[in-house]
Amino acid sequence: MKPNLIVGVGGGTGSGKTTLCLKLAEFLGPERVLILSQDHYYRDAGHLPLKQRARQNFDRPEAVDFELMVRHLKQLQAGLEIARPIYDFRQHVRLEASEPALPLPVVLVEGTLVFAAEDLFGCFELKLYVEADPDIRFIRRLKRDMRERGRSVESIVHQYLQTVRPMHLRFVEPARRHADMVISGVDGIEQQVAAVGDRIWRAAGIS
Amino acid sequence: MKPNLIVGVGGGTGSGKTTLCLKLAEFLGPERVLILSQDHYYRDAGHLPLKQRARQNFDRPEAVDFELMVRHLKQLQAGLEIARPIYDFRQHVRLEASEPALPLPVVLVEGTLVFAAEDLFGCFELKLYVEADPDIRFIRRLKRDMRERGRSVESIVHQYLQTVRPMHLRFVEPARRHADMVISGVDGIEQQVAAVGDRIWRAAGIS
Repeated sequence: MKPNLIVGVGGGTGSGKTTLCLKLAEFLGPERVLILSQDHYYRDAGHLPLKQRARQNFDRPEAVDFELMVRHLKQLQAGLEIARPIYDFRQHVRLEASEPALPLPVVLVEGTLVFAAEDLFGCFELKLYVEADPDIRFIRRLKRDMRERGRSVESIVHQYLQTVRPMHLRFVEPARRHADMVISGVDGIEQQVAAVGDRIWRAAGIS
Repeated sequence: MKPNLIVGVGGGTGSGKTTLCLKLAEFLGPERVLILSQDHYYRDAGHLPLKQRARQNFDRPEAVDFELMVRHLKQLQAGLEIARPIYDFRQHVRLEASEPALPLPVVLVEGTLVFAAEDLFGCFELKLYVEADPDIRFIRRLKRDMRERGRSVESIVHQYLQTVRPMHLRFVEPARRHADMVISGVDGIEQQVAAVGDRIWRAAGIS
């Protein structure tokens, strides 16, 4: 089995990329869709003291191991299994363990920066950009970081203003113009999933 | 003494209206500038049970006593003192007491909805719209409401999504096109204050 279609799913923090990917997998059939997240591919920061690790800029392209993402896509295209890395957000290190993943007909590659690295950009046969107003995106991120990571409002706001927002304006938002489809991450996601899913369905030649 | 110029200062929550007004007063001389805030002119909600008061939509034009604002501007134009109301944000009532204010050469009328009511709109000889991205505006509001009003993140987010944002899109943002000048509430405020201040200075015929 080799993938029929590799799809890039970009967009800002909190835009709705993950939701879109999960709904697309549901629409197309989970047995047909492999989701690769940029989140798994952060570079190991284990060489830095723990305090310094958290203070890194995780929103610039250099923070992501794009070489490994591209290598994994090539392996999948060759019909080979990959060892998807596992990233520990508390320690900011890549774990020794990894997760095996087999090629499936549709591969969705999602993350804020998936269109920012040229080699990865070149792998995509279809590019989707998920869009939502910045206030809505910030509020989603705020809620998520408070709930899932137990962080303070102050530290969330600080990180957002120091790195997330400037990197968004510099590396994420400009990629919008290269997208084949721009999808609202706020309104009527169900109808959009059907339209996007149909397009993927045909492009991937799934029958 | 009668005012030479009545200026409307609109823009969304957290856009920087108050900062701009204070800096303009500094630039023009505080003895020449009277600031009237929409915040003082909310309608008294004393007829409602306390719980219900807080749940009101304070972001729609009906929440503001525009008739009184217009009457006060007419009084100032006639050279008369006004009794500026005082609004209690905890009880959501207008206090018995008021603050006297005398006409000054420049009157700045600031608030999210100052361009939303036709009679008030007609009073302005110069219209300024202060603009900032919605994520920046939300973060400023979040910080202010946590600090000054001791509110929880949940209640701030809830109010923002339920009333502030929809009313902004419906009543605040559309007024931008009617402004004589659009001013960034984020970058280089100092230089902008000089430019806007010069314009007011000339229009008001201050020498």
